[in-house]
Amino acid sequence: MTSALRVTEIGEFGLIHRLTASLFHNAATAPIGVGDDAAVLEYNEGEQMVATTDALVEGVHFLCATTSFFDLGYKSVAVSMSDVAAMGAVPRHVLITLCIPNDAIVEDLEQLYRGIDAICRKYDAVVVGGDVARADQLVINVTVLGAVKRGRALLRSGARSGDLVFVTGALGGSAAGLHLLEHDGSVVVMPDERQRLLTMHLLPQPQVQAGQLLAASQLCTSCNDVSDGLASELTEICEASKCSIVVDRERIPIDSHVRNYAARCKCDPVEWALFGGEDYQLVGSVDRMGAGRLDAQMQASGIPFHWIGHVDAPTADGPAVWLSERGARRKLTAHGYNHFRVQGDSGLQSNENRSDQASRDGWRC
Amino acid sequence: MTSALRVTEIGEFGLIHRLTASLFHNAATAPIGVGDDAAVLEYNEGEQMVATTDALVEGVHFLCATTSFFDLGYKSVAVSMSDVAAMGAVPRHVLITLCIPNDAIVEDLEQLYRGIDAICRKYDAVVVGGDVARADQLVINVTVLGAVKRGRALLRSGARSGDLVFVTGALGGSAAGLHLLEHDGSVVVMPDERQRLLTMHLLPQPQVQAGQLLAASQLCTSCNDVSDGLASELTEICEASKCSIVVDRERIPIDSHVRNYAARCKCDPVEWALFGGEDYQLVGSVDRMGAGRLDAQMQASGIPFHWIGHVDAPTADGPAVWLSERGARRKLTAHGYNHFRVQGDSGLQSNENRSDQASRDGWRC
Repeated sequence: MTSALRVTEIGEFGLIHRLTASLFHNAATAPIGVGDDAAVLEYNEGEQMVATTDALVEGVHFLCATTSFFDLGYKSVAVSMSDVAAMGAVPRHVLITLCIPNDAIVEDLEQLYRGIDAICRKYDAVVVGGDVARADQLVINVTVLGAVKRGRALLRSGARSGDLVFVTGALGGSAAGLHLLEHDGSVVVMPDERQRLLTMHLLPQPQVQAGQLLAASQLCTSCNDVSDGLASELTEICEASKCSIVVDRERIPIDSHVRNYAARCKCDPVEWALFGGEDYQLVGSVDRMGAGRLDAQMQASGIPFHWIGHVDAPTADGPAVWLSERGARRKLTAHGYNHFRVQGDSGLQSNENRSDQASRDGWRC
Repeated sequence: MTSALRVTEIGEFGLIHRLTASLFHNAATAPIGVGDDAAVLEYNEGEQMVATTDALVEGVHFLCATTSFFDLGYKSVAVSMSDVAAMGAVPRHVLITLCIPNDAIVEDLEQLYRGIDAICRKYDAVVVGGDVARADQLVINVTVLGAVKRGRALLRSGARSGDLVFVTGALGGSAAGLHLLEHDGSVVVMPDERQRLLTMHLLPQPQVQAGQLLAASQLCTSCNDVSDGLASELTEICEASKCSIVVDRERIPIDSHVRNYAARCKCDPVEWALFGGEDYQLVGSVDRMGAGRLDAQMQASGIPFHWIGHVDAPTADGPAVWLSERGARRKLTAHGYNHFRVQGDSGLQSNENRSDQASRDGWRC
């Protein structure tokens, strides 16, 4: 047995070399990648590029005790790729900043990069640069650049009254996986159910193909990715589009494993869908006249696609998201994870109790 | 007097709104900037884009006690813009990730963003996105995207034996400013000298115009920016170009204030130039046949330009940087700041004592 290699034993440059030596690369789109001051990237004429950046912070977004480094690397890129997908763009290039404690173990960081490499290979994206710095806690910042056909980017601002509201897959699964991590041992779960719930939380998939189809269709009037929960994402669309949205509670898609698990631990899976976040499905609006056509396109491509509500004119007090259930409506307010929560801020105007909020605040996106 | 506003009083979204409300924007190059999932950016045909990312970490790269938040914001962007300048590219778009402690003061972060905005306005670059997350220590990650005419990017890999080696301005000033911060009160300095030294350390200027002229000239065979010290940057060029470089000690440009200050505190300013780093001048090589022409172009543009040595074939044991002084040569090894220093690693093979290393290790780039 050899003892674990510490970062201090190989130095910053040794670390970078080890982390990047076997990365996927693509000389056609990145003639100059890792190894110079900056990356030189090819973008065809007729395209626009998109760029987004997101950080995951140890103790805030994740705990090393409940995620593997591979999964953490995968997810750190998935989070930013999901933003690119929500624009209808194709992810192309990735830049990684790692802030790491002095006692970090090289093998852990290599595993992290294997996760980064895995998702990059899956979506044909190339890591083209990065930075490594010392810090007290692990921070992974990911910038993703992508391309979309000129004028086709999916924005939040185009939803119009009468449009139908869609989501590309089941929601609430990430929150269920988080609940399981937080209550492990206290709830009975089957091994396959456990695996499925944890995968939904730890290894989310950016909806890149769905985003591209939505952009190509020219029928999608608004789009957002579910990072903070359905209520928060729809609120962003309502504010950008100056509209209201009515969601039919019964139509929100919930995975059967999530529904079963929620029943056993006496939780409401719809609350997870509305406020849990990190499902990284796409949600948005579509011109009602083209909805059938788009539905058929999605079916043909094997992409789950669910109609969950419609767009309305804003109410007297402005844009709002309403949850409709058996004829009654409840107003929702954005209530995703907030890094600096204002005291007394509640996601539900009806003041539902969220007893798990305190523990979540410690380490959620 | 009102008490300082805390981040927790306005929440993440309130903070982002305050930070980005008055930022410089440019609809022609960034039709969609802050406020959607990702930025949509325009790049003309015939251009390549460059992208780079860098983090500054509290307690590692800076101390809040010795920098203003404005300067910190300015410098955090300057560091990445300098990488873009070293490619000969024009900075266009900037993405900022702020990881901030829960008790951060909003006014401080607004000052930070004023510094970010100031450098962006100066170089006509646009902040097009970002992320804010909670963390135990302040981390600022900056991604800069830029454009360069196709095939004109300045790489590290083209230096050839016989080329002349240049630097675009005086070196060692940042290290002098750092020395002053670390020894404040123990060395006599005039107010104007103090101001000049601190400015060189706290408000470095990326050499964007120089980089563009170098790229346009098509005479520059390699280029790097001085982030880690001349020895480190030249070593990178030697390794990428498979060559050696001989630097004439007498030709390394040192600002007169730096020289005077160094004399008073019995330091060698050339050591600061070689190993101090953070001067953010450009260094590189030029075809000897075109050197006179380039020199004249730089003079005409008012850009300082100094010839400091030449490129040689690699020696028997590979690429190397040599310091030449009165006919004798000393081999230098890369010795910029290393976040995870290998124990016993010394920048000088002649084992010079670097008594200030321990204190520097605590908070240098």
